[in-house]
Amino acid sequence: MDLQTLAAQLTDGALTTDPDVVAAHSKDEALFCPHDGAIALVRAKSVEDVQATVRFAHAHTIPVVPQGARSGISGGANATEGSILLSVAAMQDVLEVNTSERTVRVQPGLINQDLKDHLRPFNLSYPPDPGSVGISSIGGNIATNAGGLCCVKYGVTRDFVRSIDVVLADGTLTTFGPQTAKGVAGLDMRGLFIGSEGTLGIVVEATLRLIPLMPDPVTAVAVFPDERSGLQAVADFMAAGGQPSLFEFLDRASLTMLNSYGDFGLNEEAGSMLLVQFDQSPAEAADMLGAFGAVAEAAGALDVAVSDDPADSAALVATRRSIQPAYEHFAHAHGGGQLLDDVCIPRAAMPAFCDRLGELRESTGLTIALVAHAGDGNTHPSVFFDAADAQQTATAEAAFEQIMQIGLDLGGTITGEHGVGYLKKGWLAKELDEGSRWAQRAVKDALDPKNILNPGKMLAEI
Amino acid sequence: MDLQTLAAQLTDGALTTDPDVVAAHSKDEALFCPHDGAIALVRAKSVEDVQATVRFAHAHTIPVVPQGARSGISGGANATEGSILLSVAAMQDVLEVNTSERTVRVQPGLINQDLKDHLRPFNLSYPPDPGSVGISSIGGNIATNAGGLCCVKYGVTRDFVRSIDVVLADGTLTTFGPQTAKGVAGLDMRGLFIGSEGTLGIVVEATLRLIPLMPDPVTAVAVFPDERSGLQAVADFMAAGGQPSLFEFLDRASLTMLNSYGDFGLNEEAGSMLLVQFDQSPAEAADMLGAFGAVAEAAGALDVAVSDDPADSAALVATRRSIQPAYEHFAHAHGGGQLLDDVCIPRAAMPAFCDRLGELRESTGLTIALVAHAGDGNTHPSVFFDAADAQQTATAEAAFEQIMQIGLDLGGTITGEHGVGYLKKGWLAKELDEGSRWAQRAVKDALDPKNILNPGKMLAEI
Repeated sequence: MDLQTLAAQLTDGALTTDPDVVAAHSKDEALFCPHDGAIALVRAKSVEDVQATVRFAHAHTIPVVPQGARSGISGGANATEGSILLSVAAMQDVLEVNTSERTVRVQPGLINQDLKDHLRPFNLSYPPDPGSVGISSIGGNIATNAGGLCCVKYGVTRDFVRSIDVVLADGTLTTFGPQTAKGVAGLDMRGLFIGSEGTLGIVVEATLRLIPLMPDPVTAVAVFPDERSGLQAVADFMAAGGQPSLFEFLDRASLTMLNSYGDFGLNEEAGSMLLVQFDQSPAEAADMLGAFGAVAEAAGALDVAVSDDPADSAALVATRRSIQPAYEHFAHAHGGGQLLDDVCIPRAAMPAFCDRLGELRESTGLTIALVAHAGDGNTHPSVFFDAADAQQTATAEAAFEQIMQIGLDLGGTITGEHGVGYLKKGWLAKELDEGSRWAQRAVKDALDPKNILNPGKMLAEI
Repeated sequence: MDLQTLAAQLTDGALTTDPDVVAAHSKDEALFCPHDGAIALVRAKSVEDVQATVRFAHAHTIPVVPQGARSGISGGANATEGSILLSVAAMQDVLEVNTSERTVRVQPGLINQDLKDHLRPFNLSYPPDPGSVGISSIGGNIATNAGGLCCVKYGVTRDFVRSIDVVLADGTLTTFGPQTAKGVAGLDMRGLFIGSEGTLGIVVEATLRLIPLMPDPVTAVAVFPDERSGLQAVADFMAAGGQPSLFEFLDRASLTMLNSYGDFGLNEEAGSMLLVQFDQSPAEAADMLGAFGAVAEAAGALDVAVSDDPADSAALVATRRSIQPAYEHFAHAHGGGQLLDDVCIPRAAMPAFCDRLGELRESTGLTIALVAHAGDGNTHPSVFFDAADAQQTATAEAAFEQIMQIGLDLGGTITGEHGVGYLKKGWLAKELDEGSRWAQRAVKDALDPKNILNPGKMLAEI
């Protein structure tokens, strides 16, 4: 095995073994996940670079760690021992916008927001909008089946991918999925590879489904005396036929941290806040606002305020999107540690989830803040801790795991949108039944018999 | 191998070997597909019946042919030599409607329209509406990832299935997919099994995603002097941002056959007709109608008529849904033969597709009629022939195949929604590239190593 043989097959300079460069590319944003041991970094400039690298790795049984923007928080892009890091971050072209078919062909390294900006002049939208929309790549979004704020109306990444070009475990290039709006010719390998976190193949191109430009929404903000009543209002509104295009929940701790971080003018008395948007026609949106207000007040809302000014609406969403910096600001002042979870549960179980989080706060003494893509039941509790305090760190890690158990207890999943990666690999077997674990192992073994594609992560412990 | 051993494990009377009964259950609605050789029929009454049957078949390496309503037209439910027919048609209960989660749990034998009727009092809709909506089952819809008329706005069956309970090839019962709105824990086995046509496992329960009751649409009908201009109007309207909830095309031959079949009052001079619906708010729908009218007229429409009367709209859709009986009426008078294709192509390729169909009519002398879920580019050409005339039958079969080749030539797929089954199994390898064929075989072999699940069909010749 001679890496120079590989380097000679690649675009000039694509391969580096410089330890500093390799180390700088060896991890994503996850905590507590190992990331040592990579032997090289390939910065692919072309599909051929990806194929050559995987072919080489296959021939020599070397682990390959596919990487996009490394913005993930589950360790899915972290180096493993003896691995080649294979980054497609530099492949970021928009290849073709097809207006009559409403599709766009893109390279995997393209940043989600850059795609959105590219499409706007065509009056077209690509809806999926993970919190990382400004820094995460389409390839990474596909690898994790990324969600976001608009899922409650528009769905997740898988719903917007028509076809993908994939490099398989032996370096073969193939296309999964038709170029057409519909197609049922054979098994849905496209859907299988979406969300497979680099364990089945490497996406080198995607044809994405688009929709006409999303209209400006109207926005309502409701504040509640406590968390439980806010979450109950979410479940009630969805049961009553509510059709929001965004439906976010922030708990008291999150509101306090936002107010400490910036001048957001949020109600200091609020026990929780809901942010809801409707992007139907003005008449329908007005009906929805009325219905939401009624449900919120019945659930005990202290105040419901409405804005149909696009700038106001955008500012409110920007406030919501500031939660992670606000968390980091808080964490920085309290020892630096934050573990962000993403348990998704049935909507009606959210009040009970909130109760269980309260018990966890009491039993651990830790600060645990909660935001949620509440319309989908997709919760994001954050556990804060002093990273210099080994005892508290251990308690936080245990609390992070306990949150997954609470999710499972309530009929939910350990991960709604962040993925399993390294961080949650030990928990996947707790969620999946025996038949499902067998089927997943069987598929993985069949498609990557040498287990070279992102080993030691998602499927490693089922 | 003693079938009485199996019978003893099943609900009383579930298994029969009566040759007449077995023969009567040995085929679906496809032409030219063999259907002999079944050794028994199991009419499962429970999940346990399905498990026991598959376990028995697995132990004795007996082919199992899963069956729902047998309304398919690709031969996917047809008997094969030495097989056990395993029908879930009798398992047709609605198990639970969950209004806050907007889901319904159903058994696989439930008829699609019966589900829709059941949901209406809850103000909830299950959108997928294949042409067979009144006779096809949810399990069959899942097995083929069925489409329909509303796909252009709402998507296909896969988009509305949250989770499925599946009996695997060895009889193990498992659940694929979370009960929650989002979930990325592990590989998407749910999506893989949807559309797998009974080759990977047998769906015994499904949790379906619902939406609030779909509003009454407004309807427009545009008639054109010829086929090409009607199809061009479809591509133009979609490129201009049109958002129909239904967008159907009927060619001259189809209009003539409808007029001969019933009193539909369709324009006798029309070369083609578009039927379009919009179910947005009244103001938005009015905008869409105006935009559609302008595009249609620019494309050469002879007339554009609008109706916002729900009864009128329903009558127009009923006319469209009468096309298959009208085809059968025509076929009956012309030797009985009809082969219905379902090639899906890019929308912009539809005018060229129409030209190629015209050439095929000329070269074969056959009547070929065309309807299409045009908004999706999903075409349904029907080739008519005298089934008593061997020469003409052979010509028709060749024309049916040539239509698939035209679809592939134009960047499309051999099947948009009917499935591969037996009828198109020889063509699947023409559509899929080498890597895709390898991946599909690998997955099939891994999940059904004895090849007992619906063998000799979809994946048999890749």
